Amino acid sequence: MTLIDGKAVSAQIKQEIAAEVEQIVAAGGKRPHLAAILVGHDGGSETYVANKVKACEACGFKSSLIRYEADVTEAELLEKVEELNQDADVDGFIVQLPLPKHISEQKVIEAIDYRKDVDGFHPINVGRLAIGLPCYVSATPNGIIELLRRYNIETSGKKCVVLGRSNIVGKPMATLMMQKATPGDATVTVCHSHSHDLKKECQEADIIIAAIGKPNFVTADMVKEGAVVIDVGTTRVPDATKKSGFRLNGDVKFDEVAPKCSFITPVPGGVGPMTIVSLMKNTLLAGKKAIYL
Amino acid sequence: MTLIDGKAVSAQIKQEIAAEVEQIVAAGGKRPHLAAILVGHDGGSETYVANKVKACEACGFKSSLIRYEADVTEAELLEKVEELNQDADVDGFIVQLPLPKHISEQKVIEAIDYRKDVDGFHPINVGRLAIGLPCYVSATPNGIIELLRRYNIETSGKKCVVLGRSNIVGKPMATLMMQKATPGDATVTVCHSHSHDLKKECQEADIIIAAIGKPNFVTADMVKEGAVVIDVGTTRVPDATKKSGFRLNGDVKFDEVAPKCSFITPVPGGVGPMTIVSLMKNTLLAGKKAIYL
Repeated sequence: MTLIDGKAVSAQIKQEIAAEVEQIVAAGGKRPHLAAILVGHDGGSETYVANKVKACEACGFKSSLIRYEADVTEAELLEKVEELNQDADVDGFIVQLPLPKHISEQKVIEAIDYRKDVDGFHPINVGRLAIGLPCYVSATPNGIIELLRRYNIETSGKKCVVLGRSNIVGKPMATLMMQKATPGDATVTVCHSHSHDLKKECQEADIIIAAIGKPNFVTADMVKEGAVVIDVGTTRVPDATKKSGFRLNGDVKFDEVAPKCSFITPVPGGVGPMTIVSLMKNTLLAGKKAIYL
Repeated sequence: MTLIDGKAVSAQIKQEIAAEVEQIVAAGGKRPHLAAILVGHDGGSETYVANKVKACEACGFKSSLIRYEADVTEAELLEKVEELNQDADVDGFIVQLPLPKHISEQKVIEAIDYRKDVDGFHPINVGRLAIGLPCYVSATPNGIIELLRRYNIETSGKKCVVLGRSNIVGKPMATLMMQKATPGDATVTVCHSHSHDLKKECQEADIIIAAIGKPNFVTADMVKEGAVVIDVGTTRVPDATKKSGFRLNGDVKFDEVAPKCSFITPVPGGVGPMTIVSLMKNTLLAGKKAIYL
């Protein structure tokens, strides 16, 4: 069994990005600039945004953090989005989700100029991904593809089961895995809360990508000997032994599943760090105007 | 075994649309107007466009056919697209594919104003479909969903195998079948030319949607007793007994598969007529400005 070390891979990619940024700057080019809007003080969001800012530093990017209290109006937020759309210094920006209930997330996402939408959530980027055109790919699926690539995991013709059909993980993940590409070319099955034979589908899978948000959902009896298991779950579970009072728990019952796997990602330290590094890669692409002018 | 009668269903839907159009016009509203651009004289394309114009008449729509010889330049075509984008009388329009090799189909598709893209091929409509937002849905998948609905075929939790991963059928079909919706909520597997276990996937499927473009590809041994089989294939096969010199052949070996099915679509007279009627439904939506203003 090989433990997929997302932390190490992401550290390496950040170095690669930093080296490229220094070359760009040395050649008189512009340092990529990522802006992030954070609304309110949700603990998870605070952590994610702080990690993104830190990753920007590691990559040699400029970063800006724009904060609003949870009572910001939708109109104020949309005005800031438009300002960032117009700001030539900002190459890409994200609005950290979730947003307070009185603000329409979809409206905010659609207000972002798709050419700066480094989260890849705008319908144009989602559509271009489905069609197979160059675009900003959603960070978590993109990070998983990168792990499969760097560990030389064969996907062509394999049975890949994606657990979960969310817009930001399950659906784009399925799209990427079925694309004519390497990694890709897999036979992809998407299972979700309504699936009757989820267990059977998993038992037959060569690759399981669990993004269902239920701690320890995937158990040993659901996994074939030699399978590749990618765990996207990051549920916060109370844990008195931790300073923070909680730990991150994956969708996979790691201790019993790992011995059966050829490859498996841990939580934390698997998919998580790759998600952030994918955002950095999109920001680099934005800075280079590599996808859109 | 129930034969799904796409011809009858599509005739009924055209009547429903025509009745609504007469109401709209009687109330002083605008008669929906579909324009079609046809380049060259490909036999298949001529037939499709002629059938679309005929369907417009049946629905009470205004239609315009704009023809170009095969040597039209990309620039000329793009100019016409822009003209139709600007023409307030045209509610929706299509450019019949395929186009001659010297013209980029993708460029033409992206030049169409997504609010008039009643084929649903523009990245914005593709992306909105993936996200689950209101949009123009690609005609063939939409027609199949309508057949499943009108025949009350249960899809929730069922195993649905889609054969083929094309941008206009396989991928959007998979998206619709896995969506939180009725029909929908299926466990969806997409198989294609690289799949190792395509046969096994089919054998376990409650619903097979074949869109692989290989005549008689799906044989009886691949189909479970009681399965629903939807045949999207329309390959032209030489046939001396036909006036045209050819017949349309589906992806399913109908004679041997049909006896095992609970429901099956014939070719012709199954999915084909529904595809055109889906375009009519999109045109009605465009005329009513029901999706975009």
